Formats: sequence, C-alpha cells, structure tokens
Amino acid sequence: MLQEFFTEHDAQFFIMYASSKNPNLYYATKFRVPDPVFYMIGDDGTELLVVPEMERRRAERESRVREIASLNDLGFHERLKELGDAKKALAETYADLIMTHHGKRVLVPDDFPAFLYQTFAEKFDVHIVENPYSIMRAVKTPEEIRNIKETSDATIQAFRFFLEILRKERNSERLRNRVESFLYSRGFMAEDTIISGDSESSDPHCTGHGDIEFHVIFDVFPRDRKTGYHSDFTRTVMIQENHEIEEMLDACVEAKNRAIEMIKDGVSGEEVHFLVCDVLESHGYTTLRQKAKEGFIHSTGHGVGLEVHERPRIYERGEELKTGMVITLEPGLYYEGVGGVRVEDTVVVRKSGCEVLTQFEDIVRLVK
Amino acid sequence: MLQEFFTEHDAQFFIMYASSKNPNLYYATKFRVPDPVFYMIGDDGTELLVVPEMERRRAERESRVREIASLNDLGFHERLKELGDAKKALAETYADLIMTHHGKRVLVPDDFPAFLYQTFAEKFDVHIVENPYSIMRAVKTPEEIRNIKETSDATIQAFRFFLEILRKERNSERLRNRVESFLYSRGFMAEDTIISGDSESSDPHCTGHGDIEFHVIFDVFPRDRKTGYHSDFTRTVMIQENHEIEEMLDACVEAKNRAIEMIKDGVSGEEVHFLVCDVLESHGYTTLRQKAKEGFIHSTGHGVGLEVHERPRIYERGEELKTGMVITLEPGLYYEGVGGVRVEDTVVVRKSGCEVLTQFEDIVRLVK
Repeated sequence: MLQEFFTEHDAQFFIMYASSKNPNLYYATKFRVPDPVFYMIGDDGTELLVVPEMERRRAERESRVREIASLNDLGFHERLKELGDAKKALAETYADLIMTHHGKRVLVPDDFPAFLYQTFAEKFDVHIVENPYSIMRAVKTPEEIRNIKETSDATIQAFRFFLEILRKERNSERLRNRVESFLYSRGFMAEDTIISGDSESSDPHCTGHGDIEFHVIFDVFPRDRKTGYHSDFTRTVMIQENHEIEEMLDACVEAKNRAIEMIKDGVSGEEVHFLVCDVLESHGYTTLRQKAKEGFIHSTGHGVGLEVHERPRIYERGEELKTGMVITLEPGLYYEGVGGVRVEDTVVVRKSGCEVLTQFEDIVRLVK
Repeated sequence: MLQEFFTEHDAQFFIMYASSKNPNLYYATKFRVPDPVFYMIGDDGTELLVVPEMERRRAERESRVREIASLNDLGFHERLKELGDAKKALAETYADLIMTHHGKRVLVPDDFPAFLYQTFAEKFDVHIVENPYSIMRAVKTPEEIRNIKETSDATIQAFRFFLEILRKERNSERLRNRVESFLYSRGFMAEDTIISGDSESSDPHCTGHGDIEFHVIFDVFPRDRKTGYHSDFTRTVMIQENHEIEEMLDACVEAKNRAIEMIKDGVSGEEVHFLVCDVLESHGYTTLRQKAKEGFIHSTGHGVGLEVHERPRIYERGEELKTGMVITLEPGLYYEGVGGVRVEDTVVVRKSGCEVLTQFEDIVRLVK
C-alpha cells in the first residue's frame, strides 16, 4: 500500500516525528517510547528510526524497524554546539539525513510539527498528506479484531458490574471510580468514563457529577493495557419512568439498529450517518445536518482501535466501509432542561453484514 | 508575562490547536477535552476558544476562557460543503477568524500542526516560538507544589510497598502490576513503571522482564488522576552483594547529593548537570559530554508537573533555576553486560536551597 502511496504523490519518503503515544508511530514501529523519535520510510526500501542514544539498544531489540540510528550518530551534538538551539539543531540534523538519502519530495502527516516542517520546506518539497498509517489502521487484522473483542468482553462485564452496584450507589463520581477500578484490576484502563445522570446528560461529553435520580448515560471506552486496543459502548439506564426520555431513547435504539442492519462491506459511513439522521428526524428530533444546536449534535460513529476515535468516520463525507473495519454506532439526543440519551455498540464490518462485539440489550431499566 | 512576549516578538496573537492531552492547552484553558480545540490569545485582550458544537456548553461552564465559539458559529459547515476536505475547511475557518481579528503576525508553538501552519503562512506572517505556557509552567504556584507533594507522598508509599513484596516476589511484570495497582487504588496512575533487574537494567528505559536476582532499578512517575500532577522517583535496590554495581551506585548517590546541595534560585540547569558529570567522571565513569555510548548517557534531570518531562532542563544549556520550579535529579550509570543503576529525587527550588519531596534513604539493600 505504501508503494502506491509514493507513486500517487510522486514522492520518495514519508516521515513522522512523534512518541509512541501517537498510534501511527506505534503501529509503524511497534516501539513504545515516551519522547518523540524520527521515522522515515522510502520508496527505495529505506526504513529508518532515529532515537536518542539512551534508546538505541532498546530500539534495536524491541522495534520492528531494522535500521536504527541515534542522534549522536547523525552529528546532532555538534549541531547543537554550533547552533545553540535544540529545535533548530534537530531540524537541521533531520534535513541533512533526508538530503543524504536524496529526498526531493517528502510527505509528512497533518500533525507533523511546524518547527520541522518549516526547516524542511526551505530545503526541499514537503507535501502534507493524511497519514497513510491512519488509513491502513482502519482495516483491522484478525489479531487486532481479537484484541478489540477482548476489550469489548471486559466492557460488557463492567456494565453488568455497574448495573449491580447502581441498585445501592447513585453518586456519579463513586460509580465512575468503582467501574474504572473494576476494569483496571482486569488489565484495562478506562478514563473519563461517562456516568452522567438526569438533566446533566444533555451535554454529551459531561462525565457526570453528584447524585443520579431518574436516568443515566453509561459510556465507557477502555483500553487493554497490554495490547493498547479499545472498545466503546454506551447504554442509557432508566431508573424512574420518564416518558419524554424513553421516547428519545426508543428513537435512538431504532436508529442504531437500522444502522446495524445496513452495515456491510461497500456501504459508506455517510450513508449510515444519513440513515440515522433520517430515523431521528422522522421521530421529530433535530439533527446537526439541519444545523440544530440541540438534538443529534454529533456524528453517528467512528473507527475504534489503538485510538478510541480513528478512521473511518460514520458521518457526512464518511468513507466506504470495508471488511475488517471496526466501528461504533452511537446515535444520541440531547435537549437542555430535558436531558440526554445515547446507545452505542462496537461492531466489525463483514462482507455481507456486521458482527456486534458489545452484545447487550438496548433498553435497560432499573425500574421494576 | 504574555504581554512582554507579544512585544518581544512584535506579534498580535498566540495560537494553539490541541486536545487537553497537551498540557499547555490544559494549563491555558483548564478545559478537559478529548479532541483538538483552537485557542487564541491576543495583545488586545482577546482570549477565545473554538470547540465543536457538542462541547460548546460544557466549555462555557468548565473552561476558564470567557469567550467560546463553536465551529458552526464560524461557518465551518459551509466551508466543508464547499471544499469537501475537513482539514482544509478547518484551516480556512481559523485563518478567517484570525484575519477578522486583524492578526498580521501570529505566533504558534513548535508542535503546531503542519496543516494549519501551511495555510496560515500563505495568508499572514506566522512565527514559530517555544510555547510561552511551557515556560510559565516551569515555575509552580503553591497549589501546584502541594499537588506534586501529594503525588510524591504516594510515590514513597508505593516504594515501601514494593520493598515489602520484593521479599517474596521477584518477577518484574508481577511486581510492576502490583505497584501500579497499589497506586491506582489510591487515585494515582502509573504506567511504564521501570522495575528492571540485573543486566537488563543497563538500558535506562527498559521497563523490565522476568525474574530479578541481583539488583533492581525501581523508577515510578505517577500522575494524580484528579489534579494531573506527577512526581518522579528512583532507587536502586541491592538484593545480593555486587561490588561493581555498588561502586556505580555510590558514585550516583554522591553526584545526586552534591547536586541537591548546589541547587537554589539562580543556579543554572547546565551547572548542575556539569557538576554531576564531574563527580561521575572523577570516579572513572564515562558521560555523554565525552560522547560516551555507555556510562551516564542521559540528562541529570527535568522539570515535573502536568508532564513527567517538562521545563526546565537539567542538562547542557539548561536554563537558570527559579524559586518554585520543581525538578528531578537522576544520575545513572549503564554498562552493557554489567547493568545499570540510578537514583532520583524530585525537589522544589527555593531561594537559598531546595526541598526534597521524595525523602527516602539513598542506598537500599534487601541483603541482610
């Protein structure tokens, strides 16, 4: 796939500069590193990782990249003495490296840091592209799907645990803490878990505060601490009867399930999103495509993998879905003064349908 | 401080585009947000945060920035329809916003994303600077110091717990898991904790695998899950006698304590680093300033706060230390085939000295 990419852009190299917190850098190198490193891959078979001296031996051992150099090897130290500015010295060192490899047209991702971009653009043709690894990452290998499935299983267990403790505990912060600890002790990291009740739930990203009385959005998106792969799951739990909220929830459940029925290889993310908008609008709710500021004010979903939010987009201009993509479907409705509801599953796109990884009933009532 | 900064660079605006995972964005806005937002501050009193529609109300409530706009308010949606490319539409929307505010010379940080930099540089004068918030963050407020002190206290508790369990448990992975769980249950997040034994410890960033026999580097740098503030602490524990390793450790302890004695307002990070190199070289060990590839191959230390590694640098060209800075001192020695040692404290710089936040004896023996 990268060879086509070089041909398409008539370029010799693609370059990243990031730590392994950047999932594309990690995906390309399989190297966990806290500080930024320089990664270069070329149409001539070059694949090179430049690391600080102290990371050299570990990079040789742990990274999947064969050729490792240290900043010292490239004369960074002398540059730093000469220029007296670490960022300038880094930029000059890397620019020299690219020129030594006869790079004339070089590709960098959207989020490439400006200080390197500026120096490079003075010396050769630099073209900003969407990161090809972001695109490659959208279609998962069977191993990646197994990883996401494991996280999904833990997610459902955490939701069952939540429903158990919700019978006695109604405080958002304490509930969040117990759910996140439950997941942590099983090897999964969940942060910013949304346990947002009553009128507060009208803000989709509000994590929730204080006591919950009537209904609650539970939205958790843990990461396996070993593999790094996420899942993403939401249910709205009714604690007391509320006709208005339940009607909103019914509409979201219908929208989500219509989306699930539609998904297969070849359908576009945009088609799925518009179907969800159609369903919600047919129930009289407003959506973002009508420029509404309340109602359905986010996208239908997104890819899930090393990031919670990654390619593809299930939204306006969302790309074609392909077998092996793992995506979420999460219609929600939010009205100030009333509250919010959302229901979300993580699914794998298959040739003629999709497989739901987060199996759980859609409407959950704590009311008897 | 920002006013001086605008005058110095003869500019009207400073701009960031990042999520709150970026500590400068969080520090400036006090807004926790998973996706990138646009922050703009000007010499005319402008301070503006642009967020997706779904984050608007939460930003109004939770952020310390007074003026909040949504992408919809700025016509992003129409741009996207027109241009068909979200990145281009974002760049054009933000460029227009800056021009509406009469921005002619605009400052952006080193890590500003290239896709915005490129569009901005076509329309007005864009100058790349070190992020002024990185510099401001180096000197901590009393509240920030209290936060780091709390994390330091938990860190020392975690080390005591480690020493207890080390009597029976010698497996790196299981030790790391228990130490990190101990911290998690107390509200602190530790990841990539180094529990690296024997010859493996010759790689400074190796987190450790398998069983430990002779000695072990324990290096933990937890973050308070509520406040976001870190501490950083390392001890080398002798499990069996080893003359060569103990001599290396003695030299590091001497270097660290000589550095602690030297630290006060006005001393430079470079002076501290060179003192540490002097001490280690006087014991016959090699250092990075001699271009050695073994021995002392990293910096003496770094600032600690919202990031584990932040300003100031305790290294070549390290800046002047000021009252209220919180820094680490962590001399280490690493020789392949022999092993590594390191000892590290987190300290607060005071007017005429420094305060050690991670009080613990320097040489720890499990040997009777």
